[in-house]
Formats: sequence, C-alpha cells, structure tokens
Amino acid sequence: MSNDGQKALVVLSGGQDSTTCLYWAMDRFGKAAVSAVTFDYGQRHRIELDCARRVAAHAGVPITRLPIDTFSALGGDALTDSNVSVEPDVDRQTGLPNTFVPGRNIVFLTFAAAYAWRRDIENLVTGVAQTDYSGYPDCRERTIKSLEQTLQLGMESQVRIHTPLMHLSKKETVELAVRLGGLEAMAYTHTCYNGVRPPCGECPACKLRARGFEEAGVEDPLLSVS
Amino acid sequence: MSNDGQKALVVLSGGQDSTTCLYWAMDRFGKAAVSAVTFDYGQRHRIELDCARRVAAHAGVPITRLPIDTFSALGGDALTDSNVSVEPDVDRQTGLPNTFVPGRNIVFLTFAAAYAWRRDIENLVTGVAQTDYSGYPDCRERTIKSLEQTLQLGMESQVRIHTPLMHLSKKETVELAVRLGGLEAMAYTHTCYNGVRPPCGECPACKLRARGFEEAGVEDPLLSVS
Repeated sequence: MSNDGQKALVVLSGGQDSTTCLYWAMDRFGKAAVSAVTFDYGQRHRIELDCARRVAAHAGVPITRLPIDTFSALGGDALTDSNVSVEPDVDRQTGLPNTFVPGRNIVFLTFAAAYAWRRDIENLVTGVAQTDYSGYPDCRERTIKSLEQTLQLGMESQVRIHTPLMHLSKKETVELAVRLGGLEAMAYTHTCYNGVRPPCGECPACKLRARGFEEAGVEDPLLSVS
Repeated sequence: MSNDGQKALVVLSGGQDSTTCLYWAMDRFGKAAVSAVTFDYGQRHRIELDCARRVAAHAGVPITRLPIDTFSALGGDALTDSNVSVEPDVDRQTGLPNTFVPGRNIVFLTFAAAYAWRRDIENLVTGVAQTDYSGYPDCRERTIKSLEQTLQLGMESQVRIHTPLMHLSKKETVELAVRLGGLEAMAYTHTCYNGVRPPCGECPACKLRARGFEEAGVEDPLLSVS
C-alpha cells in the first residue's frame, strides 16, 4: 500500500520498535517520502543516538537530530539522571516505574509535529505500544489519540500519529520487521537498559527482546555483532 | 476563594498576561501555594527572562527557569530566529502570523506539567487568550482543553490547566490585574516586540497594551519607568 504524495516522519530512537516503524513507514509511504528525527535529550545511554544514525544510514533515510536539554534540567528520573538507578519495581508513591519520564512521548511527538509542520509532512510514526510495555501511560492509545487531536488543533494541521506496534506483542513486532525487510537493520539497534553492546542479556529490556525473537523463531542479528 | 491544600504553577513569561495570571493564582490558591516557571527557549528578547524574574521577586513567589534548546534548532520562526524579521502580516502559505512557533504552548505546558508532576502540583496557570490575540491556534480554548486531557492521560494525573484570561479583552485583563493587586508589578513586565525598555510604543504588541490600559482608564506603570 502506498499513499501518493504523502510524507512521513519517523521518531527513531535507535531501538528495535522504532526501527520496525521505520520499515513500516517505508513500506506504507514509499522510501523517498520518509525521513526520521531523533532526540538528544540527555539520555543515559548515548549509544542510542549512534544506533539511530546507523539504522537510518542502513535504510538510506535522512535523519535529523534535535536537542532537548529540558529533561535533564527537570531531573529525577532514571533514564536521564545518572544519580538515579534503574529499579525493577514501580515507585510506591506514583505507581509507575522510575524510568518514567513524565511527558516524554508528548514532547517528542510535539517537536516532531513542529518539525513536520514546516515541511508539509502530515504523518508521524512512533513505536509506542500498549503491550509488553512497562506501563508508561504516555504509550497508550488513548493518550496518543488525544495528543493527535491536540496537535491538530494547536497547529491547525491534519497531522496524524501512526502507531503500527500499538497492539502487537514483541513476537509480532519481530515478525513484522522480518516481513518488511527490516531484520538486518536490527543489528544496529539498541535495547539494553545497561547501555552495553553486545547487550547484557540480563536486564528486563534484553530479556523482553530475547523472548520476542525466540517466540518468532528468528535469530536476533544483534547477537552476532561482535 | 481559596483551594485548601492545592498547589499551583504559573507559566510566567514576564509579560502582562502571565503576570496577571500570577496574581490570579495567588488570589485563588493562596500565595504560599504558588510557584512559577519560565522558559529560556532562545527567545529573541532575552529581556523577558529578566522581567519574569523581577515580577516573581516583586510578588514574593519562587521561580524556576527551565531551558529548551529545541525551538532554536527547529528554526524558521520570527520569535526565536534572528534571521527572520517580524512581519505584521500573516504568512500567505500557512495563514498564520510568522511569529507562530508551532507547538510552543503545548511544549511549555507539557514541561510545566512534568515539573509539577514530581511536586504534587495539580494546577497549571497560563495567560493564553482567544481574544485580542494574534490568531495562534495553540492559545485557543479547544486546544488547551484537549491538551489538558492529553496530559491527564499521559501522566496519569489530575492536572488542570487554568486560563483565567481566555475570554477577556485587554481592557478586562488590566481591570483584573488592578482588582487583584497586580498593577504595580506591571512596571516589571515586557510586551514590546522590538524588545526595548521603555517600550517602543509603535509595534502591534505595544499598541494593543496601550489600548487596554487606556480603555480601562488606568495608567500603565511601565511607562513611568525610566
């Protein structure tokens, strides 16, 4: 399926999910109509930025890196604050994992929409998913639908937010990547919470990824990377 | 009217409208429950940041300055890009004034909500208004209501966005500030699009402000500042 004349912008973190979305967008809109944006928001794992660049280069899609220095200034969460350690449990007070960066996806998609606005790009693609996830409320479909409306109203645009992985399991995401020719690119992605390459294999993110590949009966190309 | 136990965060730009909102919040929630946040987003008029600081100091309310370096990186609008001049007319292609920074208020309020989230502040106050305005779609009530829902869903919170000036004319905003004891603080505010102090008196923002004070029959304390 191709959408003639429509352009798409993929929010590419350099992880497995957003990389799958990149291949989804190339399939849906045609490779020439697709570009990517990645955010340098002070993430603990700088390796993600390099992964996003390498995934885009492998796919042959232009990528723009945008800085966001605000989350570090806000502080207090484990994914951007090196004084906070990643805890497997939820915070007792908030009921959310302490890797939750409040508003992160809302900010990412709003800046992506602002970038798209001046370039007549009406489609945003993001790898958020309700399933197999850590319970982040900004990954849920209701939040994304509400944000889509907010952006349409706030920018007087017809911008759409596509979430092709929203209801897929990790197994199904692997299968989708394989079907769309995105398996090779997985060698350049980053998933591990401990930020090491090759991945630690022990953290929750590594285990989730491994189970998805295992259930899909596919070998993860990342594991053959030396 | 006071809301026992509820805290409020005012998005303070250092302008007339947000300063009026600061006094509105102090009246509504009690001064001890109010704090302010201001954004250093690469605005052309750095004087705004100093004005916000002085307004907060005058009111005796704590203020936090948060950086946002993303808008400058996005480029292409007159309020943050010194290569673009402020034009009085709307852009022919977009139908919006070229001072429109796409997503600006959405980003400001999302970061304000993220800041508030960790501090159990459930009320955000912003000076956006539908009336007497430059036609920015992110200042409209529908956009703000939609954003409020997005933030509630995305942060699993009960955050509310208060817009006390939404349907007020400039005249009524001046009258509100006078009634709430905020007139003196207007001497520290900034409005002029040309970024000068005392204000130029010629730009659209200066003229709008002057008309509001004139219609309210009140002398603008900013004009007595040497």
